[in-house]
Amino acid sequence: MGVVVPFDGGEDREPSIDLIVQLVAKDLARVNEAILLHARSHVDMIPEIAGHLIASGGKRLRPMLTLAAARLCGYRGDDHLALAAAVEFIHTATLLHDDVVDSSDLRRGRDTANAVWGNKPAVLVGDFLFARSFQLMVEVGSLRILEILSHAAAVIAEGEVHQLITANDTTTTEAAYLEVIEAKNAALFAAASRIGAVVADRPPAEEAALERFGRNLGIAYQLVDDMLDFSARQSELGKTVGDDFRDGKITLPIVIAFARGDAEERAFWRRTLEQSEQEADDLARAMRLIERHGALAETLARARVYAQSAAEALALFPDGPLRRALEESAAFATERAF
Amino acid sequence: MGVVVPFDGGEDREPSIDLIVQLVAKDLARVNEAILLHARSHVDMIPEIAGHLIASGGKRLRPMLTLAAARLCGYRGDDHLALAAAVEFIHTATLLHDDVVDSSDLRRGRDTANAVWGNKPAVLVGDFLFARSFQLMVEVGSLRILEILSHAAAVIAEGEVHQLITANDTTTTEAAYLEVIEAKNAALFAAASRIGAVVADRPPAEEAALERFGRNLGIAYQLVDDMLDFSARQSELGKTVGDDFRDGKITLPIVIAFARGDAEERAFWRRTLEQSEQEADDLARAMRLIERHGALAETLARARVYAQSAAEALALFPDGPLRRALEESAAFATERAF
Repeated sequence: MGVVVPFDGGEDREPSIDLIVQLVAKDLARVNEAILLHARSHVDMIPEIAGHLIASGGKRLRPMLTLAAARLCGYRGDDHLALAAAVEFIHTATLLHDDVVDSSDLRRGRDTANAVWGNKPAVLVGDFLFARSFQLMVEVGSLRILEILSHAAAVIAEGEVHQLITANDTTTTEAAYLEVIEAKNAALFAAASRIGAVVADRPPAEEAALERFGRNLGIAYQLVDDMLDFSARQSELGKTVGDDFRDGKITLPIVIAFARGDAEERAFWRRTLEQSEQEADDLARAMRLIERHGALAETLARARVYAQSAAEALALFPDGPLRRALEESAAFATERAF
Repeated sequence: MGVVVPFDGGEDREPSIDLIVQLVAKDLARVNEAILLHARSHVDMIPEIAGHLIASGGKRLRPMLTLAAARLCGYRGDDHLALAAAVEFIHTATLLHDDVVDSSDLRRGRDTANAVWGNKPAVLVGDFLFARSFQLMVEVGSLRILEILSHAAAVIAEGEVHQLITANDTTTTEAAYLEVIEAKNAALFAAASRIGAVVADRPPAEEAALERFGRNLGIAYQLVDDMLDFSARQSELGKTVGDDFRDGKITLPIVIAFARGDAEERAFWRRTLEQSEQEADDLARAMRLIERHGALAETLARARVYAQSAAEALALFPDGPLRRALEESAAFATERAF
């Protein structure tokens, strides 16, 4: 295929998601309307909580994938709007439950729903949005799409449970870690992209290509997220670091540092992550160890391979602004690390 | 219609659900197999937790309604089996999340999943079963049934949030209480019955009749459950009483006792339920007040009206063992109070 992870090399700008945001902006505005409309309920607390998270400045990456994929496939109808809203509802439901499961107080710099309203409504509003997402899909009426997204939802839940099990386990392998993020994070990216081809009634090869694009993009994104959680640069920018460390989550930087560490270092990882005994300067030490073993560079290198695969998957689509914007969003997934 | 809440008056036995259990026994055995099969996952903790609750001796009322309704409609295929399993998955997911939301330690005399494994996996396995239920429906391939059950799932979640809001609020009206249980409890009974007619491809009148049967049966069941939570007889039998009181849930017995109480009694209800300040003998006093105002008899009287409506809804079906067994299950809903 020989696609180099792109964005126009001739230009002197950083890769970003601005291009794709511009190209789907009109559709996305209508998706946002659909989201508000379908989050309504005679029980006021529901749109209140859903709105808190939905309006909290998420990038709407997943619904954008559905919109862009449908357009890339030449789709000219309106059904992709409801489907993009359904995808965002699944994502929002997952975040609501995630924050309860992780006892998180902050997301995107704002209080989480569970921090403001408590765990109970956060769980139940997640259930509501999940049900609503299926109602939206039913309105569109494609059983194939219902199949793809219900399967993705099951895989996401499996990935979350799998992650719970690997948490605090320093013997977690890279393969187990990748299995978790492929399920927990990449499955929805993959499904969101894939249904763009289905709604446009395109042949299996295009469906598979978009699935591959989304899956690899999702893995690249998560690898970089996991890397940024230990990044000195993030720390300098005043962003939170060390959340995963404090939660005992075994992400790739730790898997690599643990594998390359000596006996004393492994004892450190076991104490801090398995026994959850953390002292004030343990995060700083963890970051030094991860740096010393080149674990962040290694994680980034893997992320670039996935981003490259994502871009290559688009090769069977005709060249044009949409394809280039999607390729650039793959480059952005890794270049945002800096 | 003039149907008297039935079971053969000529016989000297109590109404029970034994008849309906017998009539669907073969189908139900196959549903149980489908449940075990579809709760499988390569993440072992999932079938372990799902199995804990699914095997814990629930009566399988809701899937039995789907099976019986389909047979009552003359259905001769196998799709009702997967649908009954889907209904049980939605119910199980709801129970898992309910027990997290209520911080319950016991259900059906066994430790709850959240008590054994913690809240995190209980939330996530609920999500998994919910997704699986939609996968099962997709396999059957009826968009109408997907519509009915996704709508029911949204209504259930709305009812749960609504219940959270009315909890600890002694000004809750009977109408608000009924709205909560109609959504939280009766919606799945209604949908489970209704889809029996849809899978059998029967006309709207039969669908509506089964919906009405299920909805009224669900309300009757819940009214009696709420009554039994304050029943001296239950207490004598060694069953737990007072759970709702301790949780500050405002159920019909309390709504009635509060409405009929004097100023001192209302102060008691406000202290125990609104301010959640409960002392050792408060439950006993609550039960005395509820008894004195005839609130249990009144609740049971309402339940009988709903059970009667449930039985009447079946009048358009031809007489026969299945219809009679369903009518008897409506009678059982209230007669189990003794």
